[in-house]
Amino acid sequence: MVRKIAGVLGATGSVGQRFILLLADHPNFELKVLGASERSAGKKYVDAVNWKQTDLLPESAKDLIVTECKASEFKDCDVVFSGLDSDFAGKIEKEFVEAGLAVISNAKNYRREPGVPLVVPIVNPEHLEVVSHKVESAKAEGKPKPGFIICISNCSTAGLVAPLKPLVEQFGPIEALTTSTLQAISGAGFSPGVPGIDILDNIVPYIGGEEDKMEWETKKILGHLASDKSHVELLSPEEIKVSAQCNRVPVSDGHTECISLKFKNRPAPSVETVKKCLSEYVCDAFKLGCHSAPKQTIHVLDQPDRPQPRLDRNRDAGYGVSVGRIREDPVLDFKMVVLSHNTVIGAAGSGILIAEILLARNLI
Amino acid sequence: MVRKIAGVLGATGSVGQRFILLLADHPNFELKVLGASERSAGKKYVDAVNWKQTDLLPESAKDLIVTECKASEFKDCDVVFSGLDSDFAGKIEKEFVEAGLAVISNAKNYRREPGVPLVVPIVNPEHLEVVSHKVESAKAEGKPKPGFIICISNCSTAGLVAPLKPLVEQFGPIEALTTSTLQAISGAGFSPGVPGIDILDNIVPYIGGEEDKMEWETKKILGHLASDKSHVELLSPEEIKVSAQCNRVPVSDGHTECISLKFKNRPAPSVETVKKCLSEYVCDAFKLGCHSAPKQTIHVLDQPDRPQPRLDRNRDAGYGVSVGRIREDPVLDFKMVVLSHNTVIGAAGSGILIAEILLARNLI
Amino acid sequence: MVRKIAGVLGATGSVGQRFILLLADHPNFELKVLGASERSAGKKYVDAVNWKQTDLLPESAKDLIVTECKASEFKDCDVVFSGLDSDFAGKIEKEFVEAGLAVISNAKNYRREPGVPLVVPIVNPEHLEVVSHKVESAKAEGKPKPGFIICISNCSTAGLVAPLKPLVEQFGPIEALTTSTLQAISGAGFSPGVPGIDILDNIVPYIGGEEDKMEWETKKILGHLASDKSHVELLSPEEIKVSAQCNRVPVSDGHTECISLKFKNRPAPSVETVKKCLSEYVCDAFKLGCHSAPKQTIHVLDQPDRPQPRLDRNRDAGYGVSVGRIREDPVLDFKMVVLSHNTVIGAAGSGILIAEILLARNLI
Amino acid sequence: MVRKIAGVLGATGSVGQRFILLLADHPNFELKVLGASERSAGKKYVDAVNWKQTDLLPESAKDLIVTECKASEFKDCDVVFSGLDSDFAGKIEKEFVEAGLAVISNAKNYRREPGVPLVVPIVNPEHLEVVSHKVESAKAEGKPKPGFIICISNCSTAGLVAPLKPLVEQFGPIEALTTSTLQAISGAGFSPGVPGIDILDNIVPYIGGEEDKMEWETKKILGHLASDKSHVELLSPEEIKVSAQCNRVPVSDGHTECISLKFKNRPAPSVETVKKCLSEYVCDAFKLGCHSAPKQTIHVLDQPDRPQPRLDRNRDAGYGVSVGRIREDPVLDFKMVVLSHNTVIGAAGSGILIAEILLARNLI
Repeated sequence: MVRKIAGVLGATGSVGQRFILLLADHPNFELKVLGASERSAGKKYVDAVNWKQTDLLPESAKDLIVTECKASEFKDCDVVFSGLDSDFAGKIEKEFVEAGLAVISNAKNYRREPGVPLVVPIVNPEHLEVVSHKVESAKAEGKPKPGFIICISNCSTAGLVAPLKPLVEQFGPIEALTTSTLQAISGAGFSPGVPGIDILDNIVPYIGGEEDKMEWETKKILGHLASDKSHVELLSPEEIKVSAQCNRVPVSDGHTECISLKFKNRPAPSVETVKKCLSEYVCDAFKLGCHSAPKQTIHVLDQPDRPQPRLDRNRDAGYGVSVGRIREDPVLDFKMVVLSHNTVIGAAGSGILIAEILLARNLI
Repeated sequence: MVRKIAGVLGATGSVGQRFILLLADHPNFELKVLGASERSAGKKYVDAVNWKQTDLLPESAKDLIVTECKASEFKDCDVVFSGLDSDFAGKIEKEFVEAGLAVISNAKNYRREPGVPLVVPIVNPEHLEVVSHKVESAKAEGKPKPGFIICISNCSTAGLVAPLKPLVEQFGPIEALTTSTLQAISGAGFSPGVPGIDILDNIVPYIGGEEDKMEWETKKILGHLASDKSHVELLSPEEIKVSAQCNRVPVSDGHTECISLKFKNRPAPSVETVKKCLSEYVCDAFKLGCHSAPKQTIHVLDQPDRPQPRLDRNRDAGYGVSVGRIREDPVLDFKMVVLSHNTVIGAAGSGILIAEILLARNLI
Repeated sequence: MVRKIAGVLGATGSVGQRFILLLADHPNFELKVLGASERSAGKKYVDAVNWKQTDLLPESAKDLIVTECKASEFKDCDVVFSGLDSDFAGKIEKEFVEAGLAVISNAKNYRREPGVPLVVPIVNPEHLEVVSHKVESAKAEGKPKPGFIICISNCSTAGLVAPLKPLVEQFGPIEALTTSTLQAISGAGFSPGVPGIDILDNIVPYIGGEEDKMEWETKKILGHLASDKSHVELLSPEEIKVSAQCNRVPVSDGHTECISLKFKNRPAPSVETVKKCLSEYVCDAFKLGCHSAPKQTIHVLDQPDRPQPRLDRNRDAGYGVSVGRIREDPVLDFKMVVLSHNTVIGAAGSGILIAEILLARNLI
Repeated sequence: MVRKIAGVLGATGSVGQRFILLLADHPNFELKVLGASERSAGKKYVDAVNWKQTDLLPESAKDLIVTECKASEFKDCDVVFSGLDSDFAGKIEKEFVEAGLAVISNAKNYRREPGVPLVVPIVNPEHLEVVSHKVESAKAEGKPKPGFIICISNCSTAGLVAPLKPLVEQFGPIEALTTSTLQAISGAGFSPGVPGIDILDNIVPYIGGEEDKMEWETKKILGHLASDKSHVELLSPEEIKVSAQCNRVPVSDGHTECISLKFKNRPAPSVETVKKCLSEYVCDAFKLGCHSAPKQTIHVLDQPDRPQPRLDRNRDAGYGVSVGRIREDPVLDFKMVVLSHNTVIGAAGSGILIAEILLARNLI
């Protein structure tokens, strides 16, 4: 199998470390370039990083020499994964795209650009058509292969939209959607992330910017490809109303979300039909044979007290999403509990799976 | 001041221990009788109990001899607080009422009896009219003072309805109400309560029977006194729709609830009007001068990340409720976060405050 | 490869579930018999068990029909792993041994029998000679292959003795040894184990019987095989003094132990020599090629703040032990921090590795 | 009663906030000056601080205008409490002393100065004689009242030495002392303190500098006043050997310490005598009638599983220390578990109590 050359931006940070873990021993990608701050540049990765993962630092990454985050250093990369902090991502990622590189970013900076696909790979890989379109247009015009950027969604949005996709496909539009989240602390990174004294024996019922992200990103991810494939069109407020309440809880990994939704079409489907729809959903990435694609995209759990983060977050290595407690809702149509692994399908893992899809489609 | 004689049923359990703490040094009540299981009867309380409170066992309770839960043992009590497990409460509390005793119970057994007031003392003390009515009727008929039972609401219901009361009074009926709770483990008691391995680094998105309790009890607590004062009439599903999703979280004390609501009347009030309404609410118990009544019934917090259980649960000694993040909701009208102390205003504390109101009204 | 038939006693309990996980897809063992209480007998395992592991219930175990814990049901087993509660282990395991079965038990009942090896497989597999001796004696006498029992050590003892073994081998006897433990809650099982309210934001500085177990078992595990190989001789109090202080902490898996020790021989070795000795130790199980044997028996960590349970407990799949902060001690000679996975090398995992050693030695 | 004027240095920090809480409504002190960084100077305290205490910000402190940490701003203060970070404390506190101010500091900078008393007020208030001596010498020489500094001990040292003092007084010198600590996270402050992801479901077996502080400070606190009262003489390594192992645990407040000790004199006292000695100890501060002095200095707990931080840290409002599990130690003489409130007797509270002692002795 052809192995593509990969680089990681923000390699010493929380998301960067996870990209590195997921790329170690990956059949499709060979990690060759690690970019970080000036302070780290020139050091061996093992000396530059404060490694904080539960898996050991991969041997293959230890001795890579960290470079600065300049496009010239990554020029041989077929794909670049960005775990940059949003303070830096805007400028650096722009430079990379202009240099013709393929960037898959976890930063929020370009998520709202209409021409940038915002992709949860188990949900809306069809939005990658925007990239195909761009690549083919350039080809038709005899231009060199263009750079592009693909954004990974916010972690809590990923879990939310996973079950919505098959439901909308089968039962039509969702008119109203509410979610209250119980989010893990790993999503906050570790410099310093959530202080221990703030979260021990405590809940913080606020995550800056998160509710707005969930409400906005849902409309893009469930939105439609424009007819000329140049961009994605958001769902309008008339098409879907979304309301999110976000809480930080003392859980290491795994976002739990209590969601309620109402379909536009009447009568609403039965609980059993909803369960069946979710269970039978197979994401395109799996059909394409992607290495990391979950065998079971959505696990519908029947035990009354599941899903639980400690017990269910690692299903399908964190690429699968668990849904439980599907039942009727006295206010909207249905309520249910969704659990997703915030650092896998909600962050770095999504980036890897997007790259696998790009590869399967010959876009990198 | 006249001090009334008080007894506690289920004195060795979690709720019973808190009744005892709250009664120690209480200006209105003298704790004289402690009832527990046969196994404990005959022992000094200090020897019978596995004391698990953060405050020390009060000296005044240590040497009381535990009795069995028989009405004859409590015949001198002006008021009896019941912390009995629901497996036993049904039969025992019935016997007590029939023996003419005034029972304030934390058990769920009689909450749904129309003639039994279900009272959150900072919310619906007017439902105690059912008791007044019963007492006066007996008097008019020349009968002896009758026994009666008053039920304390479920812990998560108490927090939910606290802000609703002033809102309904000022802005009219609530048409739809949703809540997702993040509930502390102390509410589950300790025999064994929630196992540590189930809740460490974890969320349990299910509490048996809790959602139904919240949805039902809200309709009774916000319901109206029947015109003949003999019972309380529930709000109908047409009057209010309530949907609850209940989660257990790794927090010791303090229930956090994310709520959304829609008023029936249009236009809906502004966020500022809602805040003002909540801030200015003074509960009747405070106006009556009750010892434990919160000086500030509802604390409206303006910091974006509050209320938090560890920081806010003890406001007004746990009798006050905190509300924060009041903002517009894209689906219903408003969303907000409510925090209440589940073992004070959500359980034993409510019982004590109900007794103080009864005393102020000469009903005990 | 020949696959041996395995059974599990106490299959629905905490330790039993872990045996089943470790036996799924094991190259040497085929799990065929699951024994549990009468209440569970006759049911499919999936219906009998309240599965509480972070890994899913193995497909291969789901449909096994649970039997009662009778030797006749296990007569085809080459090895039986016992996760029985000590209330039942005494009688049942005795019956199994008398029926000629090979039992590897996590229960404490027979640990103090001189003729029963108490084995931490990365430490003292040579004590299995007691079993060889028994088997060969029977053979020599023309008797059928005898049943026997091998005990797994207490979880906190396993971590303690792991680094002691190579130190004693290289530097001679340890005169004094102290340890203060910070033990995970998974060791307490889940019926109910440690209540959440007891361990959230809390430490319990007491684990019933644990200190005595650590002090006693250390003397047996580090003890010598009697010259006739019929039993193991304990180290005497003159040979080694051991003092343990045991604490339960809010950690799910992984026991941390702060240990100090003094060698009998003077001068004491240097810190560097101690580190080297530990790093270079290779356990016999690894030399024998056992499937689960850790590649690195003892991981000597140089970072000042390691080992940590969340980051280091899974080294070598939980079969390796981590040691850090090796430094001189102003009172004894050295102090260090040891971390071991309490449910792997401290319980079920040790049982599996013992069985692998028995197999490699043709004892099953 | 005469009320003295008090100031707080580092008023917005973790320790500063606690000084402010303890000074609110204090009968002896009136809080008038709050010093913080330039960034905060000029603002109302309520606007400058990120208040993180479980008690509300006292009304009396809200509107105080924060000043810079200059002696001229504090010139009217009878006593100044310093919660400064050690990066700043060295220079600022020196300036204050030179300006004739009485400084009680929680910073580590001057603890090792022989002429600076290092005081745990329930343990060694006699070391304040160094201050008396200095004041009286100045008086005798006709000089103005001199400034001075008194250091509060490290938090974990305070808990350790509390039970040692009465033991040494009654049974003579301690030859060897070991301790393994389980320390709360509140001691690490909150800028950022211990990151949540580092301490959730985890132990950190390392606190920078802490072990050395415990080993050294113990020798000063238990040391003797020089015959000329000019300084304190440390115990020598020959007089006492101390070994500490420090761990950070997921507990909000309350340091648990497992200690073992050996007396010099033979035979060692009995367990019962030790218990009696500790129970009967009354600290001088209580005898002097100090407001915050614990009624019971050392609580000897008989339950096998106590003390526990969540249940016992608030005894005597955090000024009392709890000791449990006193028993013989196979290696040294005795082992026991000590619990102390790290932010009260281990930090700000000690500062307040020291000031109360100074006041009772007319030293401020």
